[in-house]
Amino acid sequence: MARFRPAVDQLEAYVPGEQPPGDADIVKLNTNENPYPPSPRALAALAGVGAERLRRYPHPLADTFRQSAADVLGVEPDWILAGNGSDDLLTMLFRAVTGAGRPVAYPAPTYVLYRTLAAIQGAPVVEVPFDEEYMLPVAALAAAGAALTLVANPNSPSGTAATPDQLASLADRTTGVLAVDEAYVAFAGASALDLVRRHGHVIVLRTLSKSHGLAGLRLGYGIAHPDLLSGLSRVKDSYNVDAVAAAVGAAAIRDVAYTRETVERIRATRTRLGEALAARGFRVWPSEANFVLARPADGNARRIYEDLKRRGVLVRYFAEPGLADKLRITVGTEEQTTRLLSCLAELMP
Amino acid sequence: MARFRPAVDQLEAYVPGEQPPGDADIVKLNTNENPYPPSPRALAALAGVGAERLRRYPHPLADTFRQSAADVLGVEPDWILAGNGSDDLLTMLFRAVTGAGRPVAYPAPTYVLYRTLAAIQGAPVVEVPFDEEYMLPVAALAAAGAALTLVANPNSPSGTAATPDQLASLADRTTGVLAVDEAYVAFAGASALDLVRRHGHVIVLRTLSKSHGLAGLRLGYGIAHPDLLSGLSRVKDSYNVDAVAAAVGAAAIRDVAYTRETVERIRATRTRLGEALAARGFRVWPSEANFVLARPADGNARRIYEDLKRRGVLVRYFAEPGLADKLRITVGTEEQTTRLLSCLAELMP
Repeated sequence: MARFRPAVDQLEAYVPGEQPPGDADIVKLNTNENPYPPSPRALAALAGVGAERLRRYPHPLADTFRQSAADVLGVEPDWILAGNGSDDLLTMLFRAVTGAGRPVAYPAPTYVLYRTLAAIQGAPVVEVPFDEEYMLPVAALAAAGAALTLVANPNSPSGTAATPDQLASLADRTTGVLAVDEAYVAFAGASALDLVRRHGHVIVLRTLSKSHGLAGLRLGYGIAHPDLLSGLSRVKDSYNVDAVAAAVGAAAIRDVAYTRETVERIRATRTRLGEALAARGFRVWPSEANFVLARPADGNARRIYEDLKRRGVLVRYFAEPGLADKLRITVGTEEQTTRLLSCLAELMP
Repeated sequence: MARFRPAVDQLEAYVPGEQPPGDADIVKLNTNENPYPPSPRALAALAGVGAERLRRYPHPLADTFRQSAADVLGVEPDWILAGNGSDDLLTMLFRAVTGAGRPVAYPAPTYVLYRTLAAIQGAPVVEVPFDEEYMLPVAALAAAGAALTLVANPNSPSGTAATPDQLASLADRTTGVLAVDEAYVAFAGASALDLVRRHGHVIVLRTLSKSHGLAGLRLGYGIAHPDLLSGLSRVKDSYNVDAVAAAVGAAAIRDVAYTRETVERIRATRTRLGEALAARGFRVWPSEANFVLARPADGNARRIYEDLKRRGVLVRYFAEPGLADKLRITVGTEEQTTRLLSCLAELMP
């Protein structure tokens, strides 16, 4: 017998964006981290974690965090399920819902992990291509009749967002589980959260990696009817969220004012970045995330990616059909954005 | 289509041992936590985690921790794969190796998660019963010819350990993956680590939950040939170990002297506990872990469990065939053990 399942032998592992050493003088605009530190309250919570909290098993459902998220969102705690990053919630969804004869549908291009998780489960995949405007293909997604339909909204790498009406229409027309992956929603104009109240088959996924500056902590959560969450709980690791992440995440999510302030700064910089790129001849898609997708006039995105890298500015380049002529650029601080734009001015005089 | 896969609908979720509030005056001997705090160096590492470490994505392979574990064990870093607890490594193993037509074998009773993970994967299970001495059934396990064979060693809930010769014989006679789950090995006389060097199909799993007093942190690791680990990496979450756990775990695993000292104290208390229970008429299996399995003379373990609980002492009771007449009692501090034994003296005068 082969050592691994055939599906696993055929997998290509997800390659995350490059992560240079912490002390390198690099402007890092390639993995959509928040350029601002987490809330001072989160840091205070970290400082308050003592030996006893480390010594004991954590609460299996990360209750401290769950209660905090519930309070902030105005839902009951049993409508929240925490995970080791929202990737963990995605893994639970795929394991609980998909498999042979239980297909997955999503628009493409999008978060590449969806394809990987489907492959691991041996689930058929229906990838519905976005048009050039990245409009959500509602009818085609609904027609797929999938066991699990995923919409990253705002989408990555496009940064674009479907309207609430489009998502409501998709929810009305699907019967399998519909997951709206709101990793970037804090930077957007609208959330699909009210769909969760109206539809037992809809789950909204969130993460503290981007909006709360906590990518290093691994903390995400799903919001859905308790019946849907109970199915996911059955396939989750017993103690999937550690005690430190639960404590720090609880403090971070309660600091709504701090999050709003840093998000507003990022949105202002996003506007500046988009306008500057457009002035330099890039096509820039309307972004509701903390990054922009931009196509240089000559389509030679790889050259710009490499030239920027040589100048110490990392952006994201995907050597894939439909994306190879574009760059995904994280919105950094004002200073980082100035340095990026100066480099571009040198490269594209 | 049903919302969940049929296998998931049939699952019963793992029920962890009760976790009373941290401030309750309870002697907690039910989940095999270490009664001593983690190393002062681990706490210092926690205090040193700053905003920048939280803000950025962690290293996908938890390199800081991996290098530390490799140094302590005397192996190359690419022979180590870190996980969000050793449960995460078990999940990777089951997802990479098992499925329909790819069976799982293990002796029983053992860690109940093995059965759950097999069920999620839809993998056939061969449970080979231990005899009353909990001798490892090498021939029957080998005869199963499973894609994945698991041996918890020391075993839970028995506390007993197979000999190195028995494990070597099992390694010689298996061709599928053989996982030796050494969650409790720090309290035992021998490890199967040298089997990993001789056999590409053997993986040893470890955790910092018990030996290093870090159950709240969720940090485990596997040691195996890089080819075996590469298959597991392909099904792991991209950033499965958070930056805090990697930093704290690295410091903890390097503090070998502290771990040795606390382990020695636990072993000494284990001897005292076993002798006291035997003197009270319990049958006590020879334990190489940080707990003992004990059968009261009348077999009425449930009554003792309940009476102890009323007195503020939590031990573990499994209402399952072969275990319902026994208790699994974690080795606590000297003081906790004294309180347990005083309560037993009241109950069994």
